[in-house]
Amino acid sequence: MREVAVIGVGMNRWGELWKMSHRRIWTEAALEAIEDAGVDHVDAMYVGCMSGGLFVGQEHLGALLADQLGMGPIPGTRVESACASGGLALRQAWIAVASGVHDIVLASGVEKMTDVDGGAATYALSTAADQEYECYHGITFPGLYAMMARRHMEQYGTTRRQMALVAEKNHRHGALNDRAQFQHEITADQVLGSAMVADPLRLLDCSPITDGAAAAVLAPVELARRITDKPLVRIAASAHATDSIALHDRDELCRITSTERAAEQAYRQAGIGPDKLSFCEVHDCFTIAEIMITEALGLVDRGRGGAFVEAGETALDGRIPVNPSGGLKAKGHPVGATGVAQVREVVLQLRGEAGRRQVKDAHWALTQNMGGTGASSVVHIFERI
Amino acid sequence: MREVAVIGVGMNRWGELWKMSHRRIWTEAALEAIEDAGVDHVDAMYVGCMSGGLFVGQEHLGALLADQLGMGPIPGTRVESACASGGLALRQAWIAVASGVHDIVLASGVEKMTDVDGGAATYALSTAADQEYECYHGITFPGLYAMMARRHMEQYGTTRRQMALVAEKNHRHGALNDRAQFQHEITADQVLGSAMVADPLRLLDCSPITDGAAAAVLAPVELARRITDKPLVRIAASAHATDSIALHDRDELCRITSTERAAEQAYRQAGIGPDKLSFCEVHDCFTIAEIMITEALGLVDRGRGGAFVEAGETALDGRIPVNPSGGLKAKGHPVGATGVAQVREVVLQLRGEAGRRQVKDAHWALTQNMGGTGASSVVHIFERI
Repeated sequence: MREVAVIGVGMNRWGELWKMSHRRIWTEAALEAIEDAGVDHVDAMYVGCMSGGLFVGQEHLGALLADQLGMGPIPGTRVESACASGGLALRQAWIAVASGVHDIVLASGVEKMTDVDGGAATYALSTAADQEYECYHGITFPGLYAMMARRHMEQYGTTRRQMALVAEKNHRHGALNDRAQFQHEITADQVLGSAMVADPLRLLDCSPITDGAAAAVLAPVELARRITDKPLVRIAASAHATDSIALHDRDELCRITSTERAAEQAYRQAGIGPDKLSFCEVHDCFTIAEIMITEALGLVDRGRGGAFVEAGETALDGRIPVNPSGGLKAKGHPVGATGVAQVREVVLQLRGEAGRRQVKDAHWALTQNMGGTGASSVVHIFERI
Repeated sequence: MREVAVIGVGMNRWGELWKMSHRRIWTEAALEAIEDAGVDHVDAMYVGCMSGGLFVGQEHLGALLADQLGMGPIPGTRVESACASGGLALRQAWIAVASGVHDIVLASGVEKMTDVDGGAATYALSTAADQEYECYHGITFPGLYAMMARRHMEQYGTTRRQMALVAEKNHRHGALNDRAQFQHEITADQVLGSAMVADPLRLLDCSPITDGAAAAVLAPVELARRITDKPLVRIAASAHATDSIALHDRDELCRITSTERAAEQAYRQAGIGPDKLSFCEVHDCFTIAEIMITEALGLVDRGRGGAFVEAGETALDGRIPVNPSGGLKAKGHPVGATGVAQVREVVLQLRGEAGRRQVKDAHWALTQNMGGTGASSVVHIFERI
């Protein structure tokens, strides 16, 4: 297995991109990553996309996008794991490079979600849950996460305000990110006063519907040193784990065991513990998710995630900044692209190119991307070398 | 890179499986492969599926099916490349084992296509073509392949009867396969007299809509020798290439260059030429496709594919049997599963377990699986060791 580095990253300005097609959104991000890497070709590409079929009536994205890039006949592979599709595309690209099957590989993710109406988008997203045993009864994701939130409140005393503070913090970070969908601050009071979606979750507890793409170029470290003069970001660990797809099959409702397992493996591979991390990019699809994930990653004891955010420990100037990019909440959540955009943030931060949201002395970073209510989790650890 | 063997295969009886759910169809095939391999666990699984979203409203299949197998938290990854999804799942599983990332890996494919009506199935399949530049104008796959067929007839003198003979041969083979959707023979005259679908292609030139799954268990050769006493089937080559997704962007309408390129790479990896092959399993989604593919694989000169089948060279007792399983035409074509079912046929044949359709002295075999009108092709070569 070869050591692998991320040598280029790209992402377009996320939002409701009415004037751009699915393929153009992706191509913009891919070309930026290729330019950033300073290469003139890639040997293969992977693309994470949750539901090209339901959102834009287009599957077969590996071939379409390799063609769009003008780089056919290179192999183009689409991988899907719901909202963890991007993280999984990165993992497959890492395996392809580490194994020696390919040298320079593009890992990417894309979703164009606003070409369908809200109901159709909610339906498309619900296909990440158990269609026959959960969705059949009418539940959608806000409802599933609302049950997880209720249980966390009941079991650990987590408060509504603590959840709202996750959104406040992530908007504060997102306001510093010129590619984010929402570049403005909000207050916890605004979150608590926003429209109810699924009790106790309100509108501003939820990540938005977004069009966007992100991309990263991977190469063996040895080759990377010859290609670029920029600081190198090494993939120190890559792990992927699953859990029951249906929430009702879990032993505990408010515990993300797929993330716990992937994180355990990742820490072991990287040879570090959570105390070494300079910051994390995690999957805050709902505010309660970020609280549960900080616990699953071992950043804080189980049940203490709410108090952790309340104490400011996860803010940009806190003990362990979480989602300096603005997270899914402010940066946006084009589901297939999210896991790759996390990597873009990591690379900018570890190179010291994150501008006003730069984490001081960033050296180690972790990304956590998940599908559904945590039925799949992908965790990567990166080191500046 | 480690040498990889296929140590177990499974597939259910394909057809219109009204009484079985998507997940049950897959699980039946997966469990058969695991039992055939004689293992009590797998370390990871890959599943090829073209459009869980459009066919059954279920994405996130990696997590769902790992859970369904009772083997969570193992990593479960779905890959998609339209009708080449199964072949690509095999390729990703091969990379995972060859690289040393995982030891025992399940490669699988599934599609449940009959839960939607015919129009919705045709729409779902059309998402393998270019939605914005081809489908927008109303064309579907029979129309695209009809244009390829017309061009082949014009350019090389290929006849309607030669195409019909592909269907006749594949039904003759399929009648010997107890897992095939259609286990009865048809004549070329019946093909020529069947309903017109898209001139010159008639109903019996087209592969059917099918529910089904297939699975294969992969392990490093060294480990495989300790696990099983059955003859081992080594993956001698794995290659994947793309072409423009839209037919109108190609230099030649009736040439499958993605297959040509993948085959070139595969022959080079395996160190053999087409003359060494004992038989092939190829992607006869329409009769004309098999003719073009035999040319792309170098089994016969370009333009001579029609005469090749007419001379009986691709029959079970011919010079190079093509589709001893019955092919997509008779065995059925649950799109995501097709590429993995080809591997099942290869393993049965190379082990000498193919019964009445056994290819004599089978030693080397090739599978070719493709998406759309050949925008993606995956080619594998196998050897009995």
